[in-house]
Amino acid sequence: MTDFAPTARTRVKRLPKRARYDRETVYAILDAGFVCHVGYAIGGQPYVTPTNYWREGDAVYWHGSSASRMLRHLEQGVECCLTITHVDALVLARSAFHHSVNYRSAMLFGRAHKIDDPRAKLAKLEAFVERMVPGRWRGLRPVTEQELKATTVLGMALEEASAKIRSGPPIDDEADYALPIWAGVVPVRAVRGAPRDDGRLAPGTRLPGNLADLSHLGLERS
Amino acid sequence: MTDFAPTARTRVKRLPKRARYDRETVYAILDAGFVCHVGYAIGGQPYVTPTNYWREGDAVYWHGSSASRMLRHLEQGVECCLTITHVDALVLARSAFHHSVNYRSAMLFGRAHKIDDPRAKLAKLEAFVERMVPGRWRGLRPVTEQELKATTVLGMALEEASAKIRSGPPIDDEADYALPIWAGVVPVRAVRGAPRDDGRLAPGTRLPGNLADLSHLGLERS
Repeated sequence: MTDFAPTARTRVKRLPKRARYDRETVYAILDAGFVCHVGYAIGGQPYVTPTNYWREGDAVYWHGSSASRMLRHLEQGVECCLTITHVDALVLARSAFHHSVNYRSAMLFGRAHKIDDPRAKLAKLEAFVERMVPGRWRGLRPVTEQELKATTVLGMALEEASAKIRSGPPIDDEADYALPIWAGVVPVRAVRGAPRDDGRLAPGTRLPGNLADLSHLGLERS
Repeated sequence: MTDFAPTARTRVKRLPKRARYDRETVYAILDAGFVCHVGYAIGGQPYVTPTNYWREGDAVYWHGSSASRMLRHLEQGVECCLTITHVDALVLARSAFHHSVNYRSAMLFGRAHKIDDPRAKLAKLEAFVERMVPGRWRGLRPVTEQELKATTVLGMALEEASAKIRSGPPIDDEADYALPIWAGVVPVRAVRGAPRDDGRLAPGTRLPGNLADLSHLGLERS
């Protein structure tokens, strides 16, 4: 895999030591989550909309109602920015100035394209459900033509992206280490609880085994 | 408190039943987290940058290096959009179409202003540290003049905002409830682990009690 070439948009100017431009790092950040924040501008007004996404190869996809303002705007192929952020820890230093957060974030730039062909769109929805819960698609009530029409799927080639990562303990001014101030990190993570059925299961319906492990979504067991 | 009046920017068009415009709801979402995604456009190009934020009264604040592209752009008072999102559950329905995510999100629109006065800026940094870890500020090595100069603090009045919330079980098509398909929710939450010192504590430095409970940041114990 070729690395992303830093561009005017993606080159990390602040704390460039935290920057990564290799696909392996960017893809690992994408693959450790399922909610991104999509940025777009309509008449100069910026909007940031949270939505689910998934990666397939060298592209990301997201979807929603065909009536969505965000999707209707982005399907025109205008510039957009997708950002994914995972918070890993609070970083508590001996001075306010060196307080920080450990995180992994990825910023993706490009123009989205709409998946028009119904069979291709259906395949993308299958990929999304399978990404969320592997093995779930085949057991579901099939998608109807009307549902497919009511859904828009957008894709964006991963051509311009960067990652930014902070990890490890606080870095204090050398003289401050002598001070009697507690410093370190408080780890933060996303966890999933036990599945809860909706109380309307058909008789004999059991909890499927594919909900036992959702670590592929960055969700550990609590 | 007066509610936010829905505007062209904040009125929720998709699934308006999920929309809230009262300050109590919006503020509760803001107060349950500490990372937002800031959207801004430079020459029509949208950017989405993750950053820490905090609320004081009817305003939000965020900060960073005075050299930050994001802060240098926003301090000019251009339009921006701050979005905060908390994911509460995966929602698994009997059809792919009705799969969803339970979430609480808030979108804030406005123009930022820079806190210029050094004493006011210092007070804002204190408020931020106290928001993150109540009681921590007074024990820290004091902020230097140079550190204060190297830091930009922006504020934005909360005048135009909306919240969007989904909660509860999946809502399936009535006929689908007869199908032998497991449906329900998988709860998701953010948790904090045990604090880890950086291995360079001055002799006799103890873990402060104010790290025992970070639930005010939306972080439960794991």
